[in-house]
Amino acid sequence: MLLPVIMAGGTGSRLWPMSRELYPKQFLRLHGRLSMLQETVERLNGLEVREPVVICNEEHRFLVAEQLRQIDKLSQNIILEPVGRNTAPAIALAALNAISDGNDPLMLVLAADHIINDTKAFHQAIAFATPYAEKDSLVTFGIVPTGPETGYGYIQRGDIVGNISELFKVKRFVEKPDEETAGKYIESGEYYWNSGMFMFRAKKYLEELKKYRPDILEACELAIANSTRNDAFTNLDKDCFMACPDESVDYAVMEKTDEAVVVSLNAGWSDVGSWSALWDVSEKDTANNAITGDAFIHNTENCYINTDEKLVAAIGVENLVIVSTKDAVLVVDKNKVQDVKRIVEFLKAEQRSEYRKHRESYRPWGRSDAVVQEKRFNVNRVTVKPGGAFSMQMHHHRAEHWVVLSGTGKVIIEGKEFLLTENQSTFIPVGSFHSLENPGKIPLELLEIQSGSYLGDDDIIRIQDQYGRD
Amino acid sequence: MLLPVIMAGGTGSRLWPMSRELYPKQFLRLHGRLSMLQETVERLNGLEVREPVVICNEEHRFLVAEQLRQIDKLSQNIILEPVGRNTAPAIALAALNAISDGNDPLMLVLAADHIINDTKAFHQAIAFATPYAEKDSLVTFGIVPTGPETGYGYIQRGDIVGNISELFKVKRFVEKPDEETAGKYIESGEYYWNSGMFMFRAKKYLEELKKYRPDILEACELAIANSTRNDAFTNLDKDCFMACPDESVDYAVMEKTDEAVVVSLNAGWSDVGSWSALWDVSEKDTANNAITGDAFIHNTENCYINTDEKLVAAIGVENLVIVSTKDAVLVVDKNKVQDVKRIVEFLKAEQRSEYRKHRESYRPWGRSDAVVQEKRFNVNRVTVKPGGAFSMQMHHHRAEHWVVLSGTGKVIIEGKEFLLTENQSTFIPVGSFHSLENPGKIPLELLEIQSGSYLGDDDIIRIQDQYGRD
Repeated sequence: MLLPVIMAGGTGSRLWPMSRELYPKQFLRLHGRLSMLQETVERLNGLEVREPVVICNEEHRFLVAEQLRQIDKLSQNIILEPVGRNTAPAIALAALNAISDGNDPLMLVLAADHIINDTKAFHQAIAFATPYAEKDSLVTFGIVPTGPETGYGYIQRGDIVGNISELFKVKRFVEKPDEETAGKYIESGEYYWNSGMFMFRAKKYLEELKKYRPDILEACELAIANSTRNDAFTNLDKDCFMACPDESVDYAVMEKTDEAVVVSLNAGWSDVGSWSALWDVSEKDTANNAITGDAFIHNTENCYINTDEKLVAAIGVENLVIVSTKDAVLVVDKNKVQDVKRIVEFLKAEQRSEYRKHRESYRPWGRSDAVVQEKRFNVNRVTVKPGGAFSMQMHHHRAEHWVVLSGTGKVIIEGKEFLLTENQSTFIPVGSFHSLENPGKIPLELLEIQSGSYLGDDDIIRIQDQYGRD
Repeated sequence: MLLPVIMAGGTGSRLWPMSRELYPKQFLRLHGRLSMLQETVERLNGLEVREPVVICNEEHRFLVAEQLRQIDKLSQNIILEPVGRNTAPAIALAALNAISDGNDPLMLVLAADHIINDTKAFHQAIAFATPYAEKDSLVTFGIVPTGPETGYGYIQRGDIVGNISELFKVKRFVEKPDEETAGKYIESGEYYWNSGMFMFRAKKYLEELKKYRPDILEACELAIANSTRNDAFTNLDKDCFMACPDESVDYAVMEKTDEAVVVSLNAGWSDVGSWSALWDVSEKDTANNAITGDAFIHNTENCYINTDEKLVAAIGVENLVIVSTKDAVLVVDKNKVQDVKRIVEFLKAEQRSEYRKHRESYRPWGRSDAVVQEKRFNVNRVTVKPGGAFSMQMHHHRAEHWVVLSGTGKVIIEGKEFLLTENQSTFIPVGSFHSLENPGKIPLELLEIQSGSYLGDDDIIRIQDQYGRD
């Protein structure tokens, strides 16, 4: 049985404004019915696999757990990184975790933010690769290129392996080429795009890592040895993991090992590395527009339009990406999408929140949409899932007012417990201990009006928290 | 003393999404410090003028009154049209109104939605025109053209009048020309753009109207004779005015009279007939971008960007108009702005509200922003001006909850009166009579949560209304 290892640690800024640091690409529904993480897990249906190991940033733990729960695939093995250290350490953590019970499973290492349209071809490639990975090859999935892309690294194949023309020894890995070089690669027929997906035995990977980057292995061993476990979550020791070098698995192992094998994959793959890449793989109308949400177009061609709630009207334009979210609008030429990172850099430099979070944010108990934010008051539209709860807490600087729009809440204020239901409201004075729980079967929707001289997120004193937050 | 007649009846759709049927162009702050109506009134400062007559659609009466009040120029003469019937009837109404006290004032007829950058030149043209208008000429203001525009009608001048080279007999009016013809007009030096601004005696206009369109005059006389007066507002008789033909003053009178004179006006005039016209007259950065609101641009040229609250990022684009409001985003090529009417037609055909109103709407007592609109509940963020009040009212199908964010409200619910202040709230059950007043000196800000099975604007039974609404 394969052990899927899903790397969900990215904080991609190239799909801003939909992707934000606190809610990046892998958690978005960008293509297909589910989020990219969920699609990644669902894509394994039909294979003989164990429960996946998911590696993510600790800021995203509730997102990962909630998205897996939604598709009934909640994993008991979610490894939380306090900081990102790239793929070589991430895979080492998963491998160390996998061998801790004395086994040596075959790992299928996947990114949580790739699209693969042809699941059957993907499963076929896995089947081709399995016997070689079992016999201690390090298999990488090489994407059959559809054009001279300069945004990907390439893999040159060597001699054929076995008796089917799908597996080859890896001759070399090459960096992102210029356009001329990429053209030559395509012409030669010997090159694949480097997908960043792999298959190998856990112990084999660790052996190779020990050979080429023992420092990374040691740091990961220490971080695991000093980790704590909390339900499904493995919390790494922060200092140990901070000390780990930041390195990709390609640099650390794959380019150095003599045992790399590439399996050919022709399955409608995309790493969705930009808005134009998403346009490439999206369904389009007769004028080549890919549209999601409430849009009106007239005399418009080759555009990608995505809007979450507001009407977008595009008139007389072409080759544009137009993305509208609750707090930002992006308009960019489809050939200039690599510059989207400029706006994210600008927002970071200005210490504005729009690079980090959406107006709507996801919490372990549900979600909160900041509909009004002013100097002296905020209004949040809050949804608490059935069974979800605010921990018992207190604020030094703000009073709160809750008005229930639908559903029922169990409220405790200064020890007094009562139910609050549709169209009822309550007031929480500054300094009062309070908690809220949704004891019902339907979501609890309420408006939270915060007022006071200081409204920062950090004015919260928690007595106890069912989600293990400070 | 001149009598300014300000025509504020337009419902312009070419500046959608900022201009809406319920809040059109003349009430927007598009250029300069004030709304276009306010700028039109303020532009008269320094001239010897009487209190202006304003003609507008009755739906806009509170907007007109409030905007005039804000600049301390509240008129006692606001004529309300139940329907739009174009400029010939509108001017006739103002003229009939003006002669009702036995006088025959000199009228300066202005549109409420034009830009004139050079006020001094405008005043000079008025001074040139005055002696001729007093001696029963019908003076039209001819704009010295800056290029072969095909969007305007033209006026060909005839012989010079008097001894300065600023006034001419009108040889003829011509319709919007094609580009070649417009080029010839410009070359000849004999043509002006038709501005739609005029100066003549009230009785002289009515005489000429009687000569050429007695049917229009009669309908207007009837509508005035059967009108009712309510404070500053003259409410025309609806049936009488509905029966009036729809005709412009150019067609009805100016093209037919032998006494038309054109005065040359070179004063940075624009009728702001499109987003590109607004870009033309706006201040621009070194890359020729005109930007209003929170925008980030990179590698962007010749764009017009206007956003009311959300961040707009424009990257690698040129010649675009990008406008973001609370409920809609427009992206249009600057050379295709005439097609903006397509989206308005589409929205009308689909019976959607975005052509008619903004998410935020203006009321006699203040304003209301529909921050959440769902099937079973609405949340409005309401601002009540000092002295403003909701009439005593009742709803058959909805309950309401008010939470005060700042300021103080005097509330009456079923006869019980009390004050509601910051962070206090109250509940109004279905069927209860209630009213709200801001007795304070600062705006009263509150959240109104409406819930019920039917939330339409028409579920309101008013007992009494200080603003004369049904």
